[in-house]
Amino acid sequence: MESAVGVLVSQFKAYACSDGSSDTLSRDEFHRLVTSELPNFVKNAGDPAAIDLLMSSLDKNNDGELNFLEFWQLIGQLASKHGGFSQ
Amino acid sequence: MESAVGVLVSQFKAYACSDGSSDTLSRDEFHRLVTSELPNFVKNAGDPAAIDLLMSSLDKNNDGELNFLEFWQLIGQLASKHGGFSQ
Repeated sequence: MESAVGVLVSQFKAYACSDGSSDTLSRDEFHRLVTSELPNFVKNAGDPAAIDLLMSSLDKNNDGELNFLEFWQLIGQLASKHGGFSQ
Repeated sequence: MESAVGVLVSQFKAYACSDGSSDTLSRDEFHRLVTSELPNFVKNAGDPAAIDLLMSSLDKNNDGELNFLEFWQLIGQLASKHGGFSQ
């Protein structure tokens, strides 16, 4: 379990460091991550408008960047759905 | 990234199904999971009182069981710390 968590942290960082702040995902970084890493979990991963909407819903402090814990909420929702848990 | 998420979901389920509701962790299931799967991430993983306290802090609806999203918050906090992100 710790190694799986380590994978998620490493992959978040790999995308987050490509521009601007290395600890947060910009819109472009988030698009790339979702398209490349979550193509089955996120419906409409190829639709830029859908990804913009998803990003807005996660960006609680509305700063145009997703920090790790904001991103973690998305993964939790996807994981919960993937696991078939009731919400 | 999707496979790492799948691992976390599977491991949660493996512990959750050992008694009572198969979708939630009882106190005993949570103890076993933390001790076996998160020995490096959770300090005092061997101290039952510390794990009880941790469980109480996560059990937002106070029903004595942790559902997946309650558990996910813990993993997110541990992952954030592990990744060195500012809170």
